[in-house]
Formats: sequence, C-alpha cells, structure tokens
Amino acid sequence: MKRPAWWKMAQPLDWLLIALPAALAIRYVPGWRNETLLFLVAGIAVIPLAGWMGRATEHLGTRAGPGIGGLLNATFGNAAELIIALMALSQGLVGVVKASITGSIIGNILLVLGASMIAGGSRFQRQTFNETVARLSATSLSLAAIGLIIPTVFHVAAGQQPGGWSPQAELRLSLGICAVLFGTYILSLVFSLVTHKELYAGDPHAPDGHDVDDAWPVSTAVIVLVVATVLVAIVSELLVGSVEAARKQLGLTETFVGVIIVAIIGNAAEHSTAITVAFKNKMDLSLGIAIGSSVQVALFVTPVLVFASVLLGNPMNLEFSLPEVAAVVLSVWILSEISGDGECNWLEGVQLLSVYLIIAILFFFLPEPAHVRTP
Amino acid sequence: MKRPAWWKMAQPLDWLLIALPAALAIRYVPGWRNETLLFLVAGIAVIPLAGWMGRATEHLGTRAGPGIGGLLNATFGNAAELIIALMALSQGLVGVVKASITGSIIGNILLVLGASMIAGGSRFQRQTFNETVARLSATSLSLAAIGLIIPTVFHVAAGQQPGGWSPQAELRLSLGICAVLFGTYILSLVFSLVTHKELYAGDPHAPDGHDVDDAWPVSTAVIVLVVATVLVAIVSELLVGSVEAARKQLGLTETFVGVIIVAIIGNAAEHSTAITVAFKNKMDLSLGIAIGSSVQVALFVTPVLVFASVLLGNPMNLEFSLPEVAAVVLSVWILSEISGDGECNWLEGVQLLSVYLIIAILFFFLPEPAHVRTP
Amino acid sequence: MKRPAWWKMAQPLDWLLIALPAALAIRYVPGWRNETLLFLVAGIAVIPLAGWMGRATEHLGTRAGPGIGGLLNATFGNAAELIIALMALSQGLVGVVKASITGSIIGNILLVLGASMIAGGSRFQRQTFNETVARLSATSLSLAAIGLIIPTVFHVAAGQQPGGWSPQAELRLSLGICAVLFGTYILSLVFSLVTHKELYAGDPHAPDGHDVDDAWPVSTAVIVLVVATVLVAIVSELLVGSVEAARKQLGLTETFVGVIIVAIIGNAAEHSTAITVAFKNKMDLSLGIAIGSSVQVALFVTPVLVFASVLLGNPMNLEFSLPEVAAVVLSVWILSEISGDGECNWLEGVQLLSVYLIIAILFFFLPEPAHVRTP
Repeated sequence: MKRPAWWKMAQPLDWLLIALPAALAIRYVPGWRNETLLFLVAGIAVIPLAGWMGRATEHLGTRAGPGIGGLLNATFGNAAELIIALMALSQGLVGVVKASITGSIIGNILLVLGASMIAGGSRFQRQTFNETVARLSATSLSLAAIGLIIPTVFHVAAGQQPGGWSPQAELRLSLGICAVLFGTYILSLVFSLVTHKELYAGDPHAPDGHDVDDAWPVSTAVIVLVVATVLVAIVSELLVGSVEAARKQLGLTETFVGVIIVAIIGNAAEHSTAITVAFKNKMDLSLGIAIGSSVQVALFVTPVLVFASVLLGNPMNLEFSLPEVAAVVLSVWILSEISGDGECNWLEGVQLLSVYLIIAILFFFLPEPAHVRTP
Repeated sequence: MKRPAWWKMAQPLDWLLIALPAALAIRYVPGWRNETLLFLVAGIAVIPLAGWMGRATEHLGTRAGPGIGGLLNATFGNAAELIIALMALSQGLVGVVKASITGSIIGNILLVLGASMIAGGSRFQRQTFNETVARLSATSLSLAAIGLIIPTVFHVAAGQQPGGWSPQAELRLSLGICAVLFGTYILSLVFSLVTHKELYAGDPHAPDGHDVDDAWPVSTAVIVLVVATVLVAIVSELLVGSVEAARKQLGLTETFVGVIIVAIIGNAAEHSTAITVAFKNKMDLSLGIAIGSSVQVALFVTPVLVFASVLLGNPMNLEFSLPEVAAVVLSVWILSEISGDGECNWLEGVQLLSVYLIIAILFFFLPEPAHVRTP
Repeated sequence: MKRPAWWKMAQPLDWLLIALPAALAIRYVPGWRNETLLFLVAGIAVIPLAGWMGRATEHLGTRAGPGIGGLLNATFGNAAELIIALMALSQGLVGVVKASITGSIIGNILLVLGASMIAGGSRFQRQTFNETVARLSATSLSLAAIGLIIPTVFHVAAGQQPGGWSPQAELRLSLGICAVLFGTYILSLVFSLVTHKELYAGDPHAPDGHDVDDAWPVSTAVIVLVVATVLVAIVSELLVGSVEAARKQLGLTETFVGVIIVAIIGNAAEHSTAITVAFKNKMDLSLGIAIGSSVQVALFVTPVLVFASVLLGNPMNLEFSLPEVAAVVLSVWILSEISGDGECNWLEGVQLLSVYLIIAILFFFLPEPAHVRTP
C-alpha cells in the first residue's frame, strides 16, 4: 500500500489532534459545554498544532538556508505561545499573560532542561556541551531577570515618595527596558547567525537529521504554517475563554494556572524534543532548545507582547509579582551554576527539577495576588 | 609502661572533657550555679564529645565498607548538632534552632572553609580541588538557600492579601519544601555513594589515614557512639537550659548566640579537621568536610528538625528572619564564586572570612527580632 | 623647531584643559554666571586633570619600582573622584556622594568594560584574559556588594522592632563593615604586589609601554601631581557648588546626576585607556583598569569617605537607597557571569552595556528619593 505524502510528515504526538474537533464540539454542541473539560481538551489540542508550526518553520528554514532559516526559527519558534498570549491580552487577562511568561521561562530551564539532564544522565555518566554558548544564553536570561527586577525596584522606591509613582512612569520604564531587551535579542541573532555561527554548529534550530533534500517544498511548508497558525488561534481562543471558569471549578489560582499549567502545555513540543536529543547525547542541541526557548520568550516574546498591549489598548507593564520575579531570578541563578562548567550529570537534572518543584509548591499555596485580578 | 587500648583512641582535644564533670558540678552543686559559666563550660564539653561521636561513626563506617559507611557518616555526621537542636525545639526555642541552623550553614562555608584556605595558602601558592564535586555541593547549598527564600517570598506576597496568609499554609509550604530538600539529599547520596563514587575518591568521609585493620571493632565503635550520644544529650540539655539566662547576662541577642556562638561550638570538630587537612594540601577533603557539613545541615538536619517539630507539637516552619535568609544567600553566593574554578589561594580564604565578619557584625548590632521571642 | 619637554607629556585629551579657565571665568566674571554651564564646563575640566594625576602617579610608580609603585597607583588611582567626593561631603551632599560611588562602581564594570569588550570584539573573534585574576576581582566586588546589602538588611530588620533602629547603631555597623572592606583591600594589595605578583604580569597599573628610562624624573612627577591635585580640588569645588542649581535647571534628579553624569566624568580617563588597550588585544590590562577601578572605589575610596565623613562632622553611613544597592548587586552578578570563564566577545560587551542602559533608564524615571535630600 502506498502511503500518502503527509504520512511521512506525521509525528508521534499527532493522535492528540483528535482533541481539536473534541474542543470545538464541547464548545458549540448545545448541552455539552463544560468549561473545565474545554480548558483541558483545548490545552491538549495546542500540543500537536505547536509541533506542526515548529516543523513547518524548520523546513522553511532549511529551504531558506542557515541565515534566514535561523531568523525564521528565532522569530516563529514560540509562535503558539505568542498567539495564546495575544488572545489573553486582548481579553484583558494581563495577569495570566505575565504568569505564563514566567512559567514559560522557568519551565524550559528547570523542567525541560532538568528532565533532559536526567534522561541523558540515565545513559551517560557525564555529558558535555559548549560552555561558551551555554554561558551566553544564561547571561541573556540574567539580563531578562534584571529587566524584571528593575520595575519592582522602581515600584518600591518610587512608592515611598508621595505622588512619586504613577502607572504612566512605570509603563514608560517598561517600554524602555523592553526596547533594550529587544535590541539585545537582535544583536544576539547577529552573533549566532552571522559573526560567530561556527560556535553554534550543534545548532538547536538545525533540523535534526533533515537535510535540504528531505525538507518540505516551500509551498507545503507555508500552507502547513498558515493552517496550523489559524488552528492555534482558534484553539487559543477556546483555551483563554475557558480559563477563568475552569480554574474556579478546579480551585486553582490564576497564577498557578498560568505559571504551571499553561506553561507545560505551551512547551510540550520543546519538552519531548529536548529529552529525545539528550538521550542521544546531543546536549548542545538539548540545551539550545531548552535555554533558547526561555531566551526567546524573555527577550523577544515579552517585549513584543508589551508593545502589542499598548496598541491593543490594554497596556501591560513589566512589573511582575514578587513570587514571579523571585521564580525567574532563582531559576536563572541555579541555571548559571549548573551550566557554567560545560558538563552535566543526572544529579544536576535532579537539582533543576527540585527548584521547579519548590517553585510549583509556592504557587500552589499562594493566594490570588491582587494585581492579577482583572477589573 | 604499657598504655591501655583507649589511649590510642585519644585525640588532642580530649583534655576538654574535663568540662563535662565541671558542667555537671556547676549545675547541681548547691551554690555553684552560674548560668553564663554553665553555658560556656557545657559548650566546651560538646566539642570533644562531638569528636568522639564523629570518630565512632567513621570507624563503624570503615568496618561497614564504603557504601553503608558513607551513609552512616552522611546521617550521623552532624548528630551532635541535631541533638542540641532537638533539645532546644522540645523547649520551644524555635528562634535559637533557626539561628543555629543559619550559623551552622554559614559557619562551615565561611569560617571553616575560609580558615582552611588561609592555612593551606600559607604553605601553598595555589591549591586545587575537584571542580565538579565543589560545584555540585555549591548548587545543593543554592537549593537550600532557595528553600529558605521561598517561604519569605510567600510570607510577603500572601501578607499583602487580606486573610491570605495563615500559619497553617506556611507550615504546609515548609513541609513541602522540606520533602523536596530531603529527597534531593537522598538522591545526592545515591550519586556520591553509588553512581559517581569515583568522583569522590578524595572522600571527605573516608577515615583519614585509617584502613580497615586500624578501625575499632564494631562493638567498641557502637559502645563509644552510644555513650558519647548520651553524654551529648545530657550536656545539650545543660547548654540549652542555660542559654536564655546566659545571653541576658552577656547582653547578647538570641540570634547572635545561635548564629555565631552555638555554631562555632557545634562545628569545632569540623573546624580543626578541615584546617589540618588543608595544611596537608588535601583540599578535596577540606572542602568535603566544610561544604559537606553545610549541605548536611541544610538538606538533612533542617528537614528532619521541621518534621520532628510537628511531632513534638512545637511546629517550626522554614520562614527564617530576613537577616538569616540574607546571611545564607550571601554566603552561598560568595562560595559559588570562590569554588567554581577548582582552585584556591589564601586571598580567597580572606574573602570568605571577610563575609563572615560582616555578617557577624550585622548580627551583633541587630536588635532581638520579634519572631525569635518565645511566647 | 625644538619642542619643549612638556610636549612629550601631552596627551590627546589635553585640549580639554581649555575648560579650566572657562570654568573660572563663568564662575567669577560678573554677569557670566550660569550654573548649568558651569557644571558642564567644570565637569569637562576634570577629565584632562584626572588624566595628568593618573600619569604623574604612574611615572612616580615606575621610578619607585613595582612594589611601592603598585601601592601608589592603588592609593592615588581614583584620587580625583576622592577629592570631588570629599568636597561634596564637606557641603553635606551625602546623597550625591553615595550616588557617585554607585555610579563609579557600575560605570566601570558595565560601561567601561562593556565598551572595551565591544571595541576589542570588533577586531578579534574571541579574546582571553587571566581567569584567576578576573575571578578574584569579581569576588572583591561581591564582597563590596555584600557590604552595601547588609546595612539595608539591618535597616529593614531593625526597623520592624519598636525603638530597635537608631542612626548611631547604623553608623557603628557601617564603620565595622568599612573596617573589614578596608582590611580586605590591604590584604589584596599584599596578594597582588607581594605573594602572587606573577599573576599580575599583565599589570593594569604598569605604565603601558613606558620603561624606567622613559619615566619622568621624580621631581617632575611630584610637581605635576601636586599642581594637578590642587587644580582638581578647585574645579571640584566649582563642580559641586553648581550641581544643585544645574540639576534643577536640567530637571534631573540628584541620583541620576550622581550615578550617571558624575560617574561618566570621573571615569573618562579609565574609559579611553581601557578601550584603547582592548583594541590592542590586551584584555588583562583592560579588565585590570575597569574592574580594578571599581574595586578601588568600593574597597578603598568608600571606606575612606565614611571614615572622613565622621571626622568632617557629616557622618555618612553605608545605607544606600534600594535602587543603588540593586544597581551594584545586579552589575556584580552580570560581571561574575561574564568574567568567570576567562574569555570574552563583542556580545558579552553588548550584554554589559544593556544592563547599564536598563539601570540608567531606572534612574532617569526615578523620582528624587527622600534620603538624598539635603536638609
């Protein structure tokens, strides 16, 4: 039997696509509506769609050559998360967006990287990776952490002066910081794609095992990308629309849902890839996916969301809650300690996961902070 | 003259054992009672007893072989401190226990390690140690520091919500964090005793210079361990019973006594051993003793005390005071900087000691915090 | 035409000396007085004078031999900044002094070092430096950061106790910390000039390209040093006298002026030298100038100013504002990440500059904090 062309394109997680019609049914078939179920099913439907978007971007990138291809990956790599966040922003769910940014940053460097190091460490006594690249990425994340600390410092310091603090000043401060972060991201692309591309030979965005001949034709890749993007947008709207009701039914706070649950859904694709390649002892690729995804969220997605929020009329500043700032800072700290020597083992994976668990416990017990309440 | 068998077991600090009957006399001879003197003499008596417990554990470990032996050392290595803390907990002195945990963690990595590096550096231009092991230990301490930061973050964040904060939530949070820390400790034992034991060839818990033939018979070791433990318990009760009155007579705060004085007493044995081996250029052993002791207190003794406090009906959470959290975080920070490159010199020892001095000055000038006041 | 002897001593920035008579004219010619212009012109006049002081010290050091010469550089290297700060202190401008200390520390490690790495990286793919020396300097700065964190911790912790906090206790705490920092500085001089001087072969204070024969005669060097010092003192008085009026006219806060503007003026000499040598691939020298200058301000100038402030009757403690402490801590953090591996590239320079920009944005938007208001 001759299999159709799309068969070769299918991937293990594609059976989860069944969740897509299921979500639509739960939402629109009269009498079936259940917000918690809708939230879960829509969440599951995002996973394979994000995978298709990622693969289409990769194949397009392979056709376009390393320079433009790297740029495509760096821009659309977290497109699913960006779409979900834009949907949430347009509905004024600023708290959920901040929480999911936090969750995405810490989820990739603690949960994804921790699991990868354990997976790799289960087969290899000691694994190595390019120390220079790992340190640069960790420093980029430190920069992002500083970008989140400064608005809090501003808030506390300005708040001590009568009439010194204003939402306008805080938004201008946030826009300034976002411009710096965004500029650094552009320059780090110049570094990795142009001036120092040989350092990134084990490129996280290089399609693993594909070469140009195996890549999809440009037309196929573009069609897949467009279709998947539209579907992600539809599913995101269902997801975001049900989050409020679902979390109340489940008795979870908005922050816990954003930091832990949305982040796990949004990063499921990175998760499975990073673990798979760690298992094959390609730690440069594994770190590139995990840390690279965090860097992309911190230095690209976040500034874009802040700029977009102003255009959407629901301005989001960079002042995250204390637990969110603490979570990012502590995650980056532990990452620096673990990635600084260019080698890893399973215990380092355990240490990353332990920090993730501690932070998850914090957000589980934390009452709803006032600042994430939507008016 | 033929010397008795115990003569070979005696050690330089054993003449301090004279403090044991002296402490009992001060406590029970009518008219001799003086709380400050009792506190000092009981404190001195702990030093040689802790040394005997340590040696008995080591010899038992040598007989049991590396695996079980390492486990014994990892479990009973800080038994004296554990006993003192349990005594203090049973009397509700939660503030003293937290202060002495803080003091033990920072004392080992700043005072003991700093003095060791200066001692070693006085003879050697440059000393080296296993970078991987040092980094893993430093990361374990970062994990512990995170475990202390999170409850404070919770307290501040939850405290901003009306009715959001409760001692019950904080205790559950602390129990969750302690479970994670304890689990990480167990897994780090698996790492150092099973899967990566060759990294620990310069094992801190390997009896220095003893081989199996020289080890005490199991019966002797067990008897010494039991007798020393009972004596430590007795002396600890005297020590804890006199701490309140003594510190008032001396005009010192509970925190200063716990962080600085009790910690120096409790770690005197580690102190002398770590310096001695540094002087012999065995820096792996020296770091193993100093950092290892901090890790043990942070990831093993602390969770055990929190669990025990619940059973004793005087629940202790993990919310330490701001100066205590700051002291641990700053100590771990400076340790990471100094231990990250696998080499040391006398100036790094001076830098560690300087941080210790700055922290000691802080606790000296600090007024008694409300939270350590026992009701 | 035979050029006079001083011609060989002249340097590119010397045409800025024109600002010296200009500043005097603006100040004393009736009707010309304009505080903003005076501030700017006096600021410009400091730059070449600081350069002459630095060169005189260097030549004197070359004549005196490496030991005493190193000591001279370590003591007078930041003399211009010390003089400006003493002038400001004598007029009670404690806020400006603290701000300029902050600015000098962060300006050297972020702006000067960042620009140097970009300059060097524009020609070299990868530059290396002595990792041990860089780590020791970064640790010294961590020590200084800890010295600034502790008084804030004290303030917050003591402030929670009724009657627990007093300016006297805070000053005693600050004096104690300053004594420790100063002692560490002396010992680090012993390290770099005596016991480990071979590590500092690429000595930052070694006159670049001069040898003893080229050095100025002692008498010339002393005269230049004395004259330049007197002129710096005169110009500093003009500078400090006009800062209040100037910043009000410009609509800038005292903190922004101190942290950003005064710091850039005071470090212009270091700036141009550090970039020049980075361009010649002498990164050890470049780091030595940039980080060394920060260390000198943190561990030598700051304690001297605190001690001097007590003698001047305007006691200055070590309690800096939250944004100032945050700026120093975050700068030292990012420096540790970047300098820990003994190599650098242009992107690391960009990362340092980005942190500088973010901090500058913070201080730009920050309203005047209460504590820097002079009574």
